[in-house]
Parts: sequence; structure tokens; C-alpha cells
Amino acid sequence: MTRPVGVWGVGTSHFGRFPDQRVETLAWEAIGEAMTAAGVTADDIDAVFVGTVFGPPGVAIRVLRGTGIGGVPVVTIEAACASGTAAFHEAAQAVASGRYGTVLAFGVEHLSSLFTGAIVPEATDADGAAGLPLPGLYALGAQRYLAVHGATVEQLAQVAVKNKAHGVRNPRAHLGRASSSGAPSLDEVLASKMIAEPLTLLQCCPTTDGAAAAVLGRARAGDVRVLSSALVSGRPWDQRSDEIWGVAPVRRAADEAFSAAGVEAEDVDVLEVHDAFTIGEIVTLEALGLCKPGEGAELAVSGHTALGGRQPVNPSGGLLSRGHPLGATGLAQLAEIVWQLRGVAGDRQVPGARIGLVETLGGAASGMDGNAAVVALLSSDPSS
Amino acid sequence: MTRPVGVWGVGTSHFGRFPDQRVETLAWEAIGEAMTAAGVTADDIDAVFVGTVFGPPGVAIRVLRGTGIGGVPVVTIEAACASGTAAFHEAAQAVASGRYGTVLAFGVEHLSSLFTGAIVPEATDADGAAGLPLPGLYALGAQRYLAVHGATVEQLAQVAVKNKAHGVRNPRAHLGRASSSGAPSLDEVLASKMIAEPLTLLQCCPTTDGAAAAVLGRARAGDVRVLSSALVSGRPWDQRSDEIWGVAPVRRAADEAFSAAGVEAEDVDVLEVHDAFTIGEIVTLEALGLCKPGEGAELAVSGHTALGGRQPVNPSGGLLSRGHPLGATGLAQLAEIVWQLRGVAGDRQVPGARIGLVETLGGAASGMDGNAAVVALLSSDPSS
Repeated sequence: MTRPVGVWGVGTSHFGRFPDQRVETLAWEAIGEAMTAAGVTADDIDAVFVGTVFGPPGVAIRVLRGTGIGGVPVVTIEAACASGTAAFHEAAQAVASGRYGTVLAFGVEHLSSLFTGAIVPEATDADGAAGLPLPGLYALGAQRYLAVHGATVEQLAQVAVKNKAHGVRNPRAHLGRASSSGAPSLDEVLASKMIAEPLTLLQCCPTTDGAAAAVLGRARAGDVRVLSSALVSGRPWDQRSDEIWGVAPVRRAADEAFSAAGVEAEDVDVLEVHDAFTIGEIVTLEALGLCKPGEGAELAVSGHTALGGRQPVNPSGGLLSRGHPLGATGLAQLAEIVWQLRGVAGDRQVPGARIGLVETLGGAASGMDGNAAVVALLSSDPSS
Repeated sequence: MTRPVGVWGVGTSHFGRFPDQRVETLAWEAIGEAMTAAGVTADDIDAVFVGTVFGPPGVAIRVLRGTGIGGVPVVTIEAACASGTAAFHEAAQAVASGRYGTVLAFGVEHLSSLFTGAIVPEATDADGAAGLPLPGLYALGAQRYLAVHGATVEQLAQVAVKNKAHGVRNPRAHLGRASSSGAPSLDEVLASKMIAEPLTLLQCCPTTDGAAAAVLGRARAGDVRVLSSALVSGRPWDQRSDEIWGVAPVRRAADEAFSAAGVEAEDVDVLEVHDAFTIGEIVTLEALGLCKPGEGAELAVSGHTALGGRQPVNPSGGLLSRGHPLGATGLAQLAEIVWQLRGVAGDRQVPGARIGLVETLGGAASGMDGNAAVVALLSSDPSS
């Protein structure tokens, strides 16, 4: 990037089901925290990038009117599950190029006013071809993964055990707060209601309301830095392709981001990745290069990706525990990584974390090349 | 702008009510025409910016899979009625800064699958404060305009007479094709069904399906050039303000665009502006500086803004005749201005047009500062 980009401050709302709460209120909670952390006021903001899937249209302006921010360019972006990450990406690029000095990015989603089901809606079957909701498509991928790699349902379920254990340490997580008795055991994950074989209820992210925000500007001493950020979208689907898990765009975005940052996968200390379903985290970590294809299923079992392990993944609890308010997710992932790199992540702090990674994949599943994948690499201030 | 930006090619679908047509088909019609005109293929496209309000989520990727374009950054933008213009703006900025070489911008909306009413839905009452649909809010503005400036309902209606007469010359206009018997007379406009006093049915844009697209890149010899483009959003509403027609963002965007281009309002040869309702064109032309406040109502009556006049406005028929498929509108306005500046606008050509203007205002009406206003200035190749 041309100019060094710093994350001046981040913030999130609480995550959960808040049917009586206005979408604006959730956003203000996140934006207020991010602006306070950044030490900026409304007049300092030069442009705003917003991520949301279900809006409603005009939601960005309705939110901003309560913040005093106005009269500046506002760009609202939809990129399925990666909407918030895409808003962050565009904001980071705008700061890097010198287009804007201080940029607010926020994402928001109020799913409880749209969906009553327990399972993440996501956009069901973005191609319209398979006629399957997202859990079904991910389940097909999971079945294939088990067959091809000889993985077990216990390995799949261990991802949920891990992330829900992390989520108990996150007071803002949707399911974290509801789990004061502790995270579910492997047996409990496997015994929960079957949604789409082999994915049980506790292997699917909940339907959640929430918001998250970040203020970006030229990196100053002490700021977490954006080393690189890449956004790529899917290619036309080729039925003869071996790319059956839909993570090819993640691989391309990761290649671009790692190359631009001069960092390798093994250098990353902490990651927040798209675990809408347990199989998702597994194939994503393979696409990111944390392990070889087929070895992803062992990473949670071995403890490699758990808090206390070598490369903790989803210390926030991930989508499986924090929840998945589509437009907010990417910026909530970013917030967690920034807190980790600043050493303020409390009970879930990864000791000495210096390099972090955020990944979100929108509109992908088995048999579909994703709508949009964003991979960003961040570091703590190298001089601190 | 840093690099000179050229519009390499534009295209649109037909506009109308196509309930049985897929949204993808409309988009392909526009994108195919734009890419053919630009002389590019799918492999040449480095990034895509998409404007849509009602999507559905993921529509951009569904469209692109039929074009062979994939694996590149795709950013889908919602900015109410200005969604397509915002997509164009982001695309133009990306080319100007050197971020991308060749960029596709397209906008699409399939309103007939969402709304059955005859009146443009727009987002009703984006503030949620007045409890009024858009025609009602515009009607309040129109009433105030009549009272403050002593304008007449005949002056208002003349805007529709003018734009519908233009639309008859546009074979792709929604109401143009339906008007083979000719455009409505002043009496017919005034006698049409009253929607919201003083706005009659023929003073409101129809609910329309459509798509439009443009390919942008570094300006080459013969290309229409983007002289400047500005995007601003509304400020928090101040009830004590005299800005009662919601066009303050248009004024700010126009000031920025004219200043950056080194052009003045009187230099503009042809304009496409946001005439969702007749009053909209009037207050917009005042905000753009074509005349003083209060004088906008006379511009259609005097013939100044009619084809054959000094500064024709909405030669395409405007939103009132072509229709207003929200995300497509801004790029359809752009397409018309590009055709005009290339001298290929057929029966509705403005002779010798050298400088053109595109303006769209999203989410504004009486009593609301707009969500987003975009003003762009274009010119024919100065060397041609």
C-alpha cells in the first residue's frame, strides 16, 4: 500500500437477538466505541464505507444522522457474508491511496426482524441452481470432505467445541453469554439436533443481530497496521473443477494478501476466519495455507488452533459463538484481531500476538465459487 | 483526477415492466452492449462496481457468471436512487487513481418482482419520521415551492410534458414505446389521476425494470471523458434550515464537480438529472446553478430545457418517461450523456453537444437531506 494504514479504533455492539432494538442503536454502540477509541469526532470523518446485506436501503444515512456525521461520501456495500470485510477493504484502500484521510467503516445487520429460524439464513443458494439452503450446501461439502480425506464427524464437531469454548470468554458473544454453565462438550455438539447431515445444530452459526465499526487513517505510532488487504470474487462455476469446497477465492485472496505483506501463513499469530459452519473453518484454514489439504480437520483436535495453541483461530468464538450478523461480521472479526494485537483481549488474549489475519467468504459453499473473499493481514506497531 | 478517465462504452437494456424476465437477462443486455461498444472482453475487466437497491443479495455475481467475468474484485453499492451513479463514481475514481485499469460498472433493478403499484416505490420516507411515501414528501415540497415562489401547477406539469415528449424519441423508454400516439398534452398531464396534490400520475415516474452499464478506462483518443465526479451525502437534518427541498447535497456535489472540471453551469450543453417527480427536476436545476432559486419552474415552459432549447434536460425522457429502476438509473443517465457527446443519440441528439452533466439524488425529498448526491461532468474528446 502507498501510505501505511492504521486502525485507529474499533468497536462492536453486543451480539444476540434484539428484536425490540432499532438497527440504529446497534450501530451507534459500535461506532461510538470505535470513534472514542480512535480519539476522533464526527467532524474528523472524511468518508464512510458501510457493509450490510439486508439494510434496509438507506440504513447507512439513518445511522449516521445520529452520529453527527454528514455531508461526506457514504458508500454502502453488499458482498454477502463478506459485506463488512469488503467495507473495511474499500476503506483501507481509500486511506492507502490518499483518497481520504480519516475513514469510518461500519457494518450492521438486524436479522431478528427478518428471520425467525435458529439457523443462519445467509443468502440461500446464491446460484439458485441447487435449490438448497446454505446449511444443505455446506453439508454436501462436509460429506465430501469426510469421504475424500477420511475425516470423522468428531473432527468436524471439535471445531464447534473449540470456538464455543472461546466464546464463553467473550462477554459480547451471542451464545457466549448464554453458556454460563460452560461450553458444550463434544458429545453435546454431536447430539444436538441434526440440521443437515453431518452438521448438527451446534455446528451452525446462530441468527444474530449486531454491529461493528472501525476508524482508519494513516498509521501513527502505536496503531495496529493494515499490512495488506485483498478482495476477490468467484469465477464462473466449472462443474469439472476439483474446487468443490468453494474456497478457491479465499486461496486467491490469501496469496495476494500474503505476497503484498511479505508474510507467510506460519508467521500469523492469531486468526478470525469464516466459520459459519464447522466445515467452513476447516477448508478455509487449508485455503489460507495453515496446513495441507486434508489436514485441516486435525487442527482443532490437536489444539493448534485453540487458545493456548500455536495459532489460535477465532478466539472471539467466531461466527459459531459470537454469531453472524452478515454485514457486521467482517468488522467484528477485525475488531477482535485489533484487540488481540493491542494486547487488550482480556481472558481470550493470545500472548504476544504480533501478526493477525481476518478472512471472510461471502456466498460460497460446496459447489459454488464464492461471491467475495476478503483476506487482510494486520500487525501490531513494529516499533512498539 | 490523476489519470484522464474515458468512458469506453455504454449500454442499457430496454426499460419497462418485464415480470417474466430474469434480472440477469436485463443486466446481460446492458453489459453486452457496453463491452461491445468498448471493444473489450471478459478477460480485460479488472474490477466491477455494481449499483442496486433491492438486489437481491448476490445478484452481482449471478449476473457476472453469465458474462465470463470472475475472479476480480466486485463491489456492490446501495445509495438509494443514486446507487448506479455511485457505482459509476467509484469506478471512475478507481481508474483515475490508477487502482484498476479497466472497470465495468453496471446497475440493475427488477422492480416488477417487488412492487405492483404504478408509482415509483423508492425507499419510502427514509427517515421513518414523516410516515409518508415518497410521492407525499415530494408533494409537500411542490406545495411549498408553489407558495414560496408563486409558481403554478401548469409550470410543474410542463416538466412532464417536455420529458415525455423526449421519451417518445427514445425506443428504450418505458413510457416512450407505449406512447406511439404521441406525448401527453399539458391538459392530459394535469387531468391524470391525482396522486399527491399537486402531483398527478403523469408527474410521477413509473415502476420500471431495467439495467445499464459502462466500461471505463484511461481516456483514449475519441473517448468521452469524465471531467469530474463528486459524491456527497446528506447532513443531519436541521428543522430550522431553509433547505426544505432536500437538494442541498446536489448543490454541494455540483460545486465540487464544477470546480474540479473548471466548467460552469452555463457551459453545459446537455443534462440528465433526477426527475422522479416534476418538482424534482425544477429544484435540481436550481441547485445545479442553471438558474436562480425560484426560476427553475420557467425553464421547461420557456423551452430552455427542451430538445431544441439552449440546455436540453433529460433528452432520454428522464425518469418520468424512461422509468426509474433505481440501481440502473444513474448508469442509464450516463449512457444517454455519452451517446449525446458522441453524437449518436439519433432523433433526440442535441446538436454539437460537447459538455454533459449527470446528476442523481438518492433518498431525498422535502424535509430530508439526501442520502447521496452524485454529479458528474463529461466532455467529448477535446481533440476531436
